[in-house]
Amino acid sequence: MNYSIIFKIIGWVIQLEGIFFLPPALTGFIYKEYNDALIYLLLGILCIISGGLIRRQKLNKTAFYAKEGFVAVALSWIVMSAIGALPFVLTKDIPYYPDALFEIISGFTTTGSSILTDVEALSHANLLWRSFSHWIGGMGVLVFILAILPMTGGSTTNLMKAESPGPSVGKLVPKMQRTAFLLYAIYLVMTIITVIFLLFGGMPLFDSLCHAFGAAGTGGFGIKNDSLAGYSTYLQNVITISMFLFGVNFTFYYYILIRKVKDAFRMEEVRWYFIIFLGAVALITVSLVAEGGGIGESIQTVAFQVASVMTTTGYATTDFNLWPEFGRAIMVCLMFIGACAGSTGGGIKVSRIMIYLKQVRKELMQQIHPKRIRVLKMDGKALEHSVVHSCNTLLMAYIVIFIVSLLLICLDGFDMTTNFTSVAATLNNIGPGLNVVGPTGNFSEFSTLSKFVFMFDMLAGRLEIIPMMVLFHPSTWKK
Amino acid sequence: MNYSIIFKIIGWVIQLEGIFFLPPALTGFIYKEYNDALIYLLLGILCIISGGLIRRQKLNKTAFYAKEGFVAVALSWIVMSAIGALPFVLTKDIPYYPDALFEIISGFTTTGSSILTDVEALSHANLLWRSFSHWIGGMGVLVFILAILPMTGGSTTNLMKAESPGPSVGKLVPKMQRTAFLLYAIYLVMTIITVIFLLFGGMPLFDSLCHAFGAAGTGGFGIKNDSLAGYSTYLQNVITISMFLFGVNFTFYYYILIRKVKDAFRMEEVRWYFIIFLGAVALITVSLVAEGGGIGESIQTVAFQVASVMTTTGYATTDFNLWPEFGRAIMVCLMFIGACAGSTGGGIKVSRIMIYLKQVRKELMQQIHPKRIRVLKMDGKALEHSVVHSCNTLLMAYIVIFIVSLLLICLDGFDMTTNFTSVAATLNNIGPGLNVVGPTGNFSEFSTLSKFVFMFDMLAGRLEIIPMMVLFHPSTWKK
Repeated sequence: MNYSIIFKIIGWVIQLEGIFFLPPALTGFIYKEYNDALIYLLLGILCIISGGLIRRQKLNKTAFYAKEGFVAVALSWIVMSAIGALPFVLTKDIPYYPDALFEIISGFTTTGSSILTDVEALSHANLLWRSFSHWIGGMGVLVFILAILPMTGGSTTNLMKAESPGPSVGKLVPKMQRTAFLLYAIYLVMTIITVIFLLFGGMPLFDSLCHAFGAAGTGGFGIKNDSLAGYSTYLQNVITISMFLFGVNFTFYYYILIRKVKDAFRMEEVRWYFIIFLGAVALITVSLVAEGGGIGESIQTVAFQVASVMTTTGYATTDFNLWPEFGRAIMVCLMFIGACAGSTGGGIKVSRIMIYLKQVRKELMQQIHPKRIRVLKMDGKALEHSVVHSCNTLLMAYIVIFIVSLLLICLDGFDMTTNFTSVAATLNNIGPGLNVVGPTGNFSEFSTLSKFVFMFDMLAGRLEIIPMMVLFHPSTWKK
Repeated sequence: MNYSIIFKIIGWVIQLEGIFFLPPALTGFIYKEYNDALIYLLLGILCIISGGLIRRQKLNKTAFYAKEGFVAVALSWIVMSAIGALPFVLTKDIPYYPDALFEIISGFTTTGSSILTDVEALSHANLLWRSFSHWIGGMGVLVFILAILPMTGGSTTNLMKAESPGPSVGKLVPKMQRTAFLLYAIYLVMTIITVIFLLFGGMPLFDSLCHAFGAAGTGGFGIKNDSLAGYSTYLQNVITISMFLFGVNFTFYYYILIRKVKDAFRMEEVRWYFIIFLGAVALITVSLVAEGGGIGESIQTVAFQVASVMTTTGYATTDFNLWPEFGRAIMVCLMFIGACAGSTGGGIKVSRIMIYLKQVRKELMQQIHPKRIRVLKMDGKALEHSVVHSCNTLLMAYIVIFIVSLLLICLDGFDMTTNFTSVAATLNNIGPGLNVVGPTGNFSEFSTLSKFVFMFDMLAGRLEIIPMMVLFHPSTWKK
């Protein structure tokens, strides 16, 4: 294990977090929350200095393998969260540290599950920090570092591999650093566009920023107790479209940028993402209309909740917990499918689901016509065996973590739907589940043990499990 | 497609079913239910004659591939069920044909889910037929035919492959026919031993036969409304042990028969099966004792329900639906794990679960120590790539069928736990689930559409999905 390089990376992360503390500090000053503002400012300065000291450490060796990549990423996220929770405690808005940790992990992992029963009681500084954490975590803090820093060969690929969601690394251009830069540029521009559209609809700047951060990172922390239900239909529709677009594989936008529009629309994953979205909206709308809902209103509401859950954002304009069972079940399915790989969304990812289905079809056709040779393809290209294999093992690891979490959560004695969807909501980085943790509920009633289980699940979900498993596996730490 | 050989096989199945109608006919005569007895007798004769006529058909070609094997097995089971449901309708004990079909499919697939609200109202002939269907379906009707008939090369392997549960065919000896014969011999002897032990505890012969059939086939149809709750502790314990033993991979018994006791106890799957059983019993017992239950009584009750659910039998002596959430969740996990491959039990099977876990471990170790070469092993032997691959695709096909079924069932408007566990209980061939379909509930309230979904799931679960998918895939039937 190359400890020195891991320390160095964590140093960078701490320093960067110090810089990220400055926007909430500024917000505090603007809203005259001087106490909060000073806390963010002091923490920011402290992080910038201490991070700088840590990263000055000399490198013993430059070797950097997959193992170091996973450990560095997993540790970075844990350190980042441990520090990120401090302002909540120090400002006394969330005085209990495990709760504050839950809240900020939920933020960074873009989950959006909350232990707060009254969001509106928070200071503006804290509200901004909560939403901003979505934006930071959405594209990944290490991808950010890669984008702005010159790093050596092996390290960049292995870091990016560990932090980026999806079956294979979304390498847009041969150079990793340039890829990371492009991703963040697209991300930033799209966020700004969202803010402009929200401002245009009359949403205040502060609200626009927070909601745009949440939509961009597919996070889901709202700043009102009723999430987005209180805003106009126009604003809700802007958020619907915004969430949907941030759930698209960013390679799509890259193709459009370089004017390969045909290639963009040929991407199988994006097409399936679109089809699943439309299918879910249609089915649920029909079920609501059958129960007496108006068509137009139903479509608008359903599109919002479906986009919110499928992209794993977690905003709500209605309580889908009260929908008929059929709609609820579709929502649970969408929770697992998730958004596209290479987007800021969570879940298993559309492309992996496609790889699973393609394997089933291939196996079936193999049995029916044994003599024909078949190759698994995606976008017309043959899928590498190692990609398929790692998709499969991810599914299994995912199921294992799901079951273990579920059993631990059950000890709290809530009903099975609550338990099942609370694990689904955290492991897939969505936010709300059903029943107790439904859109109008929250995670405050769970025991501290359960909260730690959820924290692990949120991190495991965001980093796609393997980094967390590598971090906690004893043989990682053996000589 | 070689239609002639498929017809021939179905002819055999019908003829055999005619013979299987005779025991219930005899039972009817003994209990003076002459109407029912005559119906079974007439149906039996009709089947023997018509089956004989069908199987006289000349073979155009002898080629017999995997595709034909799957189609033959899937069709055989459907035909067998379609005919097997007739006595229930004709005796007017279950007048509605889809209900009767549900009941007999549940019987043959050894599921044990019932649409009956009052089992005790059935005639003795019908009760015996219900339980006997478990025994017939447990080891498989085609395996039976293989055991008693001389068949040509390719056909035997492909039939056995399609009907036997588990990742690879349990080929005990090089010759398929001898394997099939040995399996049935072990099966018969163990059933007789169970009957003897039950008689010894004072259970009437009729009850003993029915319960032994249910335990042997891991079916679960009881003959009392309270399943086995009304019998003595001794009798319940006999059934516990019996269910557990029929959930063991039959290769274990074969090794013991040929005095390779060491090899028998070295079987990884059997060891894990044992460990999972003990672990589940221990955990649930602790949770019951923590709520004030007596230790001795809790262990006895929990061992029964765990053996019943894990082997996918479905007998009950208590309503585990009322257990604390932790125990309920463990039971749901056990439903999916199921029994050993090569046993009469259903579920995903312990050996597959092991293959999944071994893959996760291998992937993880590969990331931590990339230079070491690792091989997936079972019982000290390297696992073939094709076995691993078909395990993986089975898991995916399983999930697909599970989700589609769940969505269809949701239309009935029951709660999510009911929907989830009712699909789990039928697809894994268990019998009871939770809430509405709990041990004291039944499937009578579901719509006819849902019942057909459950029937498909029971058959798909028993035949391990691929045969049913091949049967219904359009390209199977294309030239």
